[in-house]
Amino acid sequence: MKLTPQVKRILDNYETDNASTKINLARVLMHGKLAGTGKLIILPVDQGMEHGPARSFAANPAAYDPHYHYKMAIDAGLNAYAAPLGALECGAISYGDQIPTILKLNNANSLNDVKNQAITGSVKEAVRLGCAGIGYTIYPGSDYCYEQIDILQELTREAKESGLIVVVWSYPRGGPFLDKAGETAVDICAYAAHIAAQLGAHIIKVKPPTSHLCLPAAKKVYEEQKIDVSTLAKRAEHIMQSAFAGRRLVLFSGGEQTSEASLFETFQGLKDGGASGAIIGRNTFQRKREDALAMLDKIIDIFKG
Amino acid sequence: MKLTPQVKRILDNYETDNASTKINLARVLMHGKLAGTGKLIILPVDQGMEHGPARSFAANPAAYDPHYHYKMAIDAGLNAYAAPLGALECGAISYGDQIPTILKLNNANSLNDVKNQAITGSVKEAVRLGCAGIGYTIYPGSDYCYEQIDILQELTREAKESGLIVVVWSYPRGGPFLDKAGETAVDICAYAAHIAAQLGAHIIKVKPPTSHLCLPAAKKVYEEQKIDVSTLAKRAEHIMQSAFAGRRLVLFSGGEQTSEASLFETFQGLKDGGASGAIIGRNTFQRKREDALAMLDKIIDIFKG
Amino acid sequence: MKLTPQVKRILDNYETDNASTKINLARVLMHGKLAGTGKLIILPVDQGMEHGPARSFAANPAAYDPHYHYKMAIDAGLNAYAAPLGALECGAISYGDQIPTILKLNNANSLNDVKNQAITGSVKEAVRLGCAGIGYTIYPGSDYCYEQIDILQELTREAKESGLIVVVWSYPRGGPFLDKAGETAVDICAYAAHIAAQLGAHIIKVKPPTSHLCLPAAKKVYEEQKIDVSTLAKRAEHIMQSAFAGRRLVLFSGGEQTSEASLFETFQGLKDGGASGAIIGRNTFQRKREDALAMLDKIIDIFKG
Amino acid sequence: MKLTPQVKRILDNYETDNASTKINLARVLMHGKLAGTGKLIILPVDQGMEHGPARSFAANPAAYDPHYHYKMAIDAGLNAYAAPLGALECGAISYGDQIPTILKLNNANSLNDVKNQAITGSVKEAVRLGCAGIGYTIYPGSDYCYEQIDILQELTREAKESGLIVVVWSYPRGGPFLDKAGETAVDICAYAAHIAAQLGAHIIKVKPPTSHLCLPAAKKVYEEQKIDVSTLAKRAEHIMQSAFAGRRLVLFSGGEQTSEASLFETFQGLKDGGASGAIIGRNTFQRKREDALAMLDKIIDIFKG
Amino acid sequence: MKLTPQVKRILDNYETDNASTKINLARVLMHGKLAGTGKLIILPVDQGMEHGPARSFAANPAAYDPHYHYKMAIDAGLNAYAAPLGALECGAISYGDQIPTILKLNNANSLNDVKNQAITGSVKEAVRLGCAGIGYTIYPGSDYCYEQIDILQELTREAKESGLIVVVWSYPRGGPFLDKAGETAVDICAYAAHIAAQLGAHIIKVKPPTSHLCLPAAKKVYEEQKIDVSTLAKRAEHIMQSAFAGRRLVLFSGGEQTSEASLFETFQGLKDGGASGAIIGRNTFQRKREDALAMLDKIIDIFKG
Repeated sequence: MKLTPQVKRILDNYETDNASTKINLARVLMHGKLAGTGKLIILPVDQGMEHGPARSFAANPAAYDPHYHYKMAIDAGLNAYAAPLGALECGAISYGDQIPTILKLNNANSLNDVKNQAITGSVKEAVRLGCAGIGYTIYPGSDYCYEQIDILQELTREAKESGLIVVVWSYPRGGPFLDKAGETAVDICAYAAHIAAQLGAHIIKVKPPTSHLCLPAAKKVYEEQKIDVSTLAKRAEHIMQSAFAGRRLVLFSGGEQTSEASLFETFQGLKDGGASGAIIGRNTFQRKREDALAMLDKIIDIFKG
Repeated sequence: MKLTPQVKRILDNYETDNASTKINLARVLMHGKLAGTGKLIILPVDQGMEHGPARSFAANPAAYDPHYHYKMAIDAGLNAYAAPLGALECGAISYGDQIPTILKLNNANSLNDVKNQAITGSVKEAVRLGCAGIGYTIYPGSDYCYEQIDILQELTREAKESGLIVVVWSYPRGGPFLDKAGETAVDICAYAAHIAAQLGAHIIKVKPPTSHLCLPAAKKVYEEQKIDVSTLAKRAEHIMQSAFAGRRLVLFSGGEQTSEASLFETFQGLKDGGASGAIIGRNTFQRKREDALAMLDKIIDIFKG
Repeated sequence: MKLTPQVKRILDNYETDNASTKINLARVLMHGKLAGTGKLIILPVDQGMEHGPARSFAANPAAYDPHYHYKMAIDAGLNAYAAPLGALECGAISYGDQIPTILKLNNANSLNDVKNQAITGSVKEAVRLGCAGIGYTIYPGSDYCYEQIDILQELTREAKESGLIVVVWSYPRGGPFLDKAGETAVDICAYAAHIAAQLGAHIIKVKPPTSHLCLPAAKKVYEEQKIDVSTLAKRAEHIMQSAFAGRRLVLFSGGEQTSEASLFETFQGLKDGGASGAIIGRNTFQRKREDALAMLDKIIDIFKG
Repeated sequence: MKLTPQVKRILDNYETDNASTKINLARVLMHGKLAGTGKLIILPVDQGMEHGPARSFAANPAAYDPHYHYKMAIDAGLNAYAAPLGALECGAISYGDQIPTILKLNNANSLNDVKNQAITGSVKEAVRLGCAGIGYTIYPGSDYCYEQIDILQELTREAKESGLIVVVWSYPRGGPFLDKAGETAVDICAYAAHIAAQLGAHIIKVKPPTSHLCLPAAKKVYEEQKIDVSTLAKRAEHIMQSAFAGRRLVLFSGGEQTSEASLFETFQGLKDGGASGAIIGRNTFQRKREDALAMLDKIIDIFKG
Repeated sequence: MKLTPQVKRILDNYETDNASTKINLARVLMHGKLAGTGKLIILPVDQGMEHGPARSFAANPAAYDPHYHYKMAIDAGLNAYAAPLGALECGAISYGDQIPTILKLNNANSLNDVKNQAITGSVKEAVRLGCAGIGYTIYPGSDYCYEQIDILQELTREAKESGLIVVVWSYPRGGPFLDKAGETAVDICAYAAHIAAQLGAHIIKVKPPTSHLCLPAAKKVYEEQKIDVSTLAKRAEHIMQSAFAGRRLVLFSGGEQTSEASLFETFQGLKDGGASGAIIGRNTFQRKREDALAMLDKIIDIFKG
């Protein structure tokens, strides 16, 4: 498929990557219903690992099967599917030619409350499974943050040498300054996006920011400089700006929504602010397949629009 | 021996493994009295290391000799024999051609109460001893869990590169949420099986689940979704579902039984729920050889039936 | 460009470095408006990582874009530009031939208060991005100091083998003896410069020292030996002396200034004491481009003069 | 020298070792006055490191010289001499062809009371010094035990690849369950021997067991199963049984003795129970050379008898 | 230069070293005014790192320049010069052919009070700088002691493979048993020398011992065995004995002296007891060059005499 101007413009922002990594980024951007638009939606399924299988899949038991998610990502026309090692091993031959995949290299589980994640995969495994990239979560603020970054630094170097893209979930958490509200405060989400950009991420995942301002030193600047954080669109714009003035792709989750309507409203706001797209997991596989496909179609339309 | 349709179907679920690993999995599935049925029973003997030699073998002193266990696994027609380094070094030449073996790579001992295990072997040793696979225990919930998974991740990659299968003992233990009852709660066992599956295990070992529900957030879902955990068969079915909708082999121990009758009943229940088989150690070597062989024959019949 | 006598004299002080490292040091010293003078000014931009994007760039939003800083360093005629991985990846092709760059290999963030930094880059990345050198921060005094030095030792060896120069930010902090005033005490700054020199740094960055004396054992010696620390020039002279009697290049930041006038006065004092130059970040990009260029021109004139 | 049937039988128990390791084991078993008997006595001298030089050698100052111990082991007709790096470096050329040596790879010192040992040598050094094997101490029970085993696991693999034998000093110590009396309790010594066997040791060193039973869960079994621990011979028999039913060589120290008579009685008891031999250090070099030679001759006679 | 009988006798004590290491040891022993005597004096300058530059050099400002120390060691006719990385990098080309050098691989600083040292150099750097050997400090007794030894063990192996000699500063410090007086107690210094010898050091550095006895268990032996520690000569003799009966070279510092006279008396006492020589830093560079040269000449005469 011929690269569109939008995709070419994005690839230009990754000027130091080797051809192989750029091709993998292009594979993701030129796949599915958003192909060529410069926008993208990724389906992540590490929920079973993080919250347990029943809490993740009992509402829609077909989703216990890893093949279900491959098919969902393919049939919905999403750009990529991200999952831990075991799940990708189950379907990489059956579906690997139909959807780009991201191997998630670290994962938490909720049998403990340590603010860290275990290493569950490697760049070599991502290459073995034909993935387009690796995924990795950091918890800026957490006592494990520097250690997590040390490891990410090595994985990032190895991934880029291997021609893979790097997707970083940047989720501030823990430490002396962040409470629950702080985790989605706009200053914190912007900071999280910037950290991931500086660490060399190709694609950054953050949560949709609230208008809350968490760090006192930051709050002062936001107020002095009159940074407009009154609407979600404005906040998304600020996040994109914080990711190297829009030179990096930033995806948002849908947040905790009470209705489909509010979910669509959230993504519309993010889109209006220039968001690169969405990562949407739980909202997809915890409803019936037809409902999920319909919902994803609407979100695709929002980002196309 | 020609692969049966049941075994072919199982191998298909391991679609990303290389030929050598699939051959080793087939070796296990095509060995012994359950050969070709798709069911399997493994004899594990790391009890001496975990509880001390007298507590393990004094009831049947012949069992002090590692050769005894090789012969037991062979004569009973089991699928494989699993043990730590020293024990396999004692018999790998004498019996290695008569039974597939699993080298257990980590082990605890009861001279301390640290909720961790020491590394007692390596993939290279497993290759040197002609093993079909490696075994490894994780304690989800424990403070050492992420560290254990970090190490397992490396061993798993190396094992698969070396053509070996990976057997994971997934035993939730420790941490802020689990008490003794929680360790065998059905939500916890299902979660443990799912974690092992995501970590890339070929064969998963869990304990037979009780109907207890441990984590409040899980309990809520089990009740809302009306997940039937009233019988052992139903619980086994739920565990199998949690292991990638039955795409992974899951073995169960017999639990703490008061009589042979209740042991058989347990395995019958598990079998009815679709369990892939059993791992049965202590119950085997702590009775007389004839009694053990008779007992194993009955269990084999249950899984054949 | 032909090396000047001043630059030749400096290179002679690095007698054990290989040709490639000397060429990179010469590249820096022969670049920009101070080319050939033996003085140098580096623009460092890791502020976004350390304090967050809004606190760093909101006062001058053009600075959210990493290209802005490349252009600033080039247009102002500075000797080099230093930044973390992500920022250099954004512009290394566009501007890499127009300004020598330093890849900063570790960075802190202010979402936690751990007195350490995360590893955010590697010597291999610096080579990949065509950098002239690596940068690394140590916190002498901190509980992490020895660990930081252990890592620096390895990075330094690898950098020198790869023909790169090593720039060390030596910022005393933490531990049982240093309070806030101690961090810029003249005995501490001199000690910090000496430590960096002993660790093999080619260029050392310290803060401008106050006349405060922090360690009692040092204070006694300063008083007995009548070391003159009454003026900034005298203090700078003492710092240079502490860096192998001036055999190592030592750069100073501008400190926390209330006005441009006091900033210029600071640099004049440092220059008078023999300082090798300046590292000036925040003061550059937190004002309008024209103002920054004018300010940098004045500082260049100070060091030329 | 032609292998005797006794030695052949022992070598058969090490069926998975490569030729080079078996040759080294044979070298030890076919050396000295016990050559060919299947019994062996090793002289270990790491006492100076563990208790300090004066406490070790002042009673017999000739023993300050490492050559003294080489000569003692040779002249007494012992099977091997074990010592740390420095001591073997002093005499490996002078005496290396006259006695097999074991390089002790870890050592404690009594300037601290940490229940661990430092790594003081490596398999590569053992090869360089022409040793027949490596020695390593573990403290089952100690908080460092799993870490010690992790390291032993790697050293064991490397030693076996290099054709060396592995001698493990298994000294239970520390942790929540062991008091001083527990360290030599028969259940604990048997457990210690079993752990070392499972870790792949060729030769195991334990202390002579008392009739004390330490762990409540073990005590119950010893009493129920009526394991006879009334005499030292019976206890030695039980230890040998715990080391893979006698498939592994187990050596005993003489314990803390008040007289030569009681020392001989101890070894006679151990011999009667089937012990493979003795490791005897302090009792050797803390008396005059003639006395030591006479004493060792008696012990050799005991094990020959 | 032809080796003297004294030097040949010393080299014979290092029988297992390879030719390259023996040549480097001979280089040191055959250099300077003590060449061929079998005695040696080393100038160590890591004082700036350990106590700060002003405390080290302000009394004699010429000493801020690393070249000063090279010239001092050369002009005084010492056997070798030891310093950290940065200092040797400053002069290895200018003076490397005129004096053997020792690269000090670890160093403390006094901005913290952690009883450990940071790794500041490597064997590879020592080879790159043409050094004759490496230097390394251990703090027996300290909580970091075993970790320090683990690292020394690796460095020692690598150094010997690279043909370098190993100089160990063995400074007991910290832990539950040592107070300030204990650090120089004769039983502790003897123990420290023995530990370094067992770790494979070619040259050992200890402090001059007092007649204090620190460890109760040692005190008892010293008294029972009537070990004469009444004079410094007797104590030095005991230290040499503790270093493998004089098979290892042991150097002493001058201790904390109040006058030149007492310094000379100290070295005379040590010499009389058989000390191999001196390591003398602070006393050298903290006085005027002429005075230092005169003082060193006297010390050389003492060891020659």
